[in-house]
Amino acid sequence: MSHSWQKYSKDNLCAPNLIHFNNAGAALMPKQVVGAVTDYLNLEAKIGGYEAMEYAAPKIEGIYRDLAQLIGAHADEIALFENATRAWQVVFYGMEFKQGDTILTTSAEYGSNLLGILHLKKIKGVNVELIPEEETGETSVSALEKMIKAKKPKLLAITHVPSQGGLVNPVENIGALARKYDIFYLLDATQSIGQMRVDVSKIKCDALCATGRKFLRGPRGTGFAYIKRERLNYLLPPVVDMMTADWQDGENFKLRDKAQRLETWESSFAGKLGLAEAVKYALGIGMDKIEKRVIHLANLLREKLGEIEDIALHDQGKIKSGIVTFKIKNIDSKDVWSQLFKKNINVTYIPKERFPLDFNLRGLTDLVRASVHYYNTEEEIDRFSREINQVILQSPGLN
Amino acid sequence: MSHSWQKYSKDNLCAPNLIHFNNAGAALMPKQVVGAVTDYLNLEAKIGGYEAMEYAAPKIEGIYRDLAQLIGAHADEIALFENATRAWQVVFYGMEFKQGDTILTTSAEYGSNLLGILHLKKIKGVNVELIPEEETGETSVSALEKMIKAKKPKLLAITHVPSQGGLVNPVENIGALARKYDIFYLLDATQSIGQMRVDVSKIKCDALCATGRKFLRGPRGTGFAYIKRERLNYLLPPVVDMMTADWQDGENFKLRDKAQRLETWESSFAGKLGLAEAVKYALGIGMDKIEKRVIHLANLLREKLGEIEDIALHDQGKIKSGIVTFKIKNIDSKDVWSQLFKKNINVTYIPKERFPLDFNLRGLTDLVRASVHYYNTEEEIDRFSREINQVILQSPGLN
Repeated sequence: MSHSWQKYSKDNLCAPNLIHFNNAGAALMPKQVVGAVTDYLNLEAKIGGYEAMEYAAPKIEGIYRDLAQLIGAHADEIALFENATRAWQVVFYGMEFKQGDTILTTSAEYGSNLLGILHLKKIKGVNVELIPEEETGETSVSALEKMIKAKKPKLLAITHVPSQGGLVNPVENIGALARKYDIFYLLDATQSIGQMRVDVSKIKCDALCATGRKFLRGPRGTGFAYIKRERLNYLLPPVVDMMTADWQDGENFKLRDKAQRLETWESSFAGKLGLAEAVKYALGIGMDKIEKRVIHLANLLREKLGEIEDIALHDQGKIKSGIVTFKIKNIDSKDVWSQLFKKNINVTYIPKERFPLDFNLRGLTDLVRASVHYYNTEEEIDRFSREINQVILQSPGLN
Repeated sequence: MSHSWQKYSKDNLCAPNLIHFNNAGAALMPKQVVGAVTDYLNLEAKIGGYEAMEYAAPKIEGIYRDLAQLIGAHADEIALFENATRAWQVVFYGMEFKQGDTILTTSAEYGSNLLGILHLKKIKGVNVELIPEEETGETSVSALEKMIKAKKPKLLAITHVPSQGGLVNPVENIGALARKYDIFYLLDATQSIGQMRVDVSKIKCDALCATGRKFLRGPRGTGFAYIKRERLNYLLPPVVDMMTADWQDGENFKLRDKAQRLETWESSFAGKLGLAEAVKYALGIGMDKIEKRVIHLANLLREKLGEIEDIALHDQGKIKSGIVTFKIKNIDSKDVWSQLFKKNINVTYIPKERFPLDFNLRGLTDLVRASVHYYNTEEEIDRFSREINQVILQSPGLN
């Protein structure tokens, strides 16, 4: 590993000899993030929760600015949530769908989002259509334009980087269509944020949701949404509380004019400060630099795994992300995960039940997912491929 | 302070000479709670977020049992949320109100709840009626029975201990009516949980919401709901995600059969483990013992403040809680809060905008709220009343 990357590894608190290739699940927090959370918790225990907030008010204000800087937005376009799913849902369920409204999405959309969409189909009778894919797996922009013309959809729900395959969707081209035809464009950036540049001023989405715990290296239980200023009034807050609205008198209330009005009143400020620290850490390295490094390592991993006979790689996409998915012949992916876990190697497995639409289309039953981050090393990739070979050799199914 | 209480104070991390009388805002976490959160965060940073969950799975399961034990429920009747408001909203917005349905609540209901209720009045045309109060401020049980007979309400929304006054509502008597007439009874126990025994098997509510950060001494960003087994199917999950439902095939999903299905997938497990530690800590002392101590200290505080000429106490209720509210003649409560803050004393102030309905009825403009917990001492109460006297003496308004 080059010297310049080694210096970031020194900020990790990770166990010696651990290979963490589950960054698409939750990446390792650097010590600065853990420190920001624990320092604030200790301040709360020392002087009181609300009193700590008085002291930290400028820092807390800063969280919105940091996230805005990360994605090329304005601070008042950011709202903080417990997770990306909640952020997505606040936008989605705020849209006031009517029977017959059309939602365009893809089979590779995140499972929780698809469940939400099917839920609305059931309870409101919305029309849900899947956008066809290119041969390489990405959402087809030309097919999308035809569908937009034919169906006049109310919403485009797109996932930037699907969880279950390596591809990167052409989000800027999709954004150009969304603007051309003025369609609400909701982007799930859960797996892209922190591993590549995500710039809403270029993507031109109307709303975006993301999480802290994945490639951004923030604490679990943190997420955020971006809602374009012009679209805030388009969304009905799904619930109203003292975060959403100010009382005017005993009977009336007035909605606040920032995206923050979509939040709820109470949350973990320790967690949020940890998220802000993670953002600063990523910006300190530089998103372009991170993106190059992640792509380099992921491609190297694909190359090494490609050399192993019994492995089939399942990543799609002309542009590939840090997510590497594969299947070992005759070995259940859950067993692979479990055997690697015992060897101090973190990956994850994805059963078909998680992404039934996508797996059916792709003819898959289960996958191993190894996702790399910039702090991973070429040496880890070597060791990983040796250990995978061991798993294959020791598998009773192949003897 | 008696020896038996001093030993608990030793677990506090609080600054020397700080008087924390803002326990109804957020109580001080004991070191065990901070330790549980930071230990788990460090484990996540060491071995990975999802990998830490593998190790901690039995502990995480235990959180539901601990909370169930605290309130006399079953573990499958507990769902965890980021805060009590979200817990309340998931129940409230899950009830499928129709135009003309009646909700009975009180003017002292928590602000965010009232905003939610008014929101529904606006968007669905539900009928909202306020239950009259006894002269002593509690919800009138006899008036409630008459209203139930006349209005056949769909929901009773009651707050156990209002945030803005010392009273304790007769929640068991209300529960008896709710059962007699079979009406859904949603109890907000945000301010009672952790300061007194809250037993759903006696209260006989259908659902309850509570927070971790107040008298329970848990971390901010934690809360929970209780939903009686028989009522779970009565509530439509407001959103559907992978926590709520299991995929059955590409088009269908099946709701899970535990209250947990009302949660969302991703959250801070560090925070939840801190909450469980706080529950164990409270149970270790004993809720009856805590309740007696809090009432003793709060009554002593009322007594001392009552001796000061320019102070009007505003606590109502035949039974009074650990929340003490008062107004100093001619001094804005915000100024009192600010001056005490500089003297290392934490209280809070409540402006009328927070509780317009209740403050109008009670003829109030603003209040100082001092809320005590078992770790506070008689010596602190003495110092507090001396300092309040100083605030009055130094006030330009009175000279």
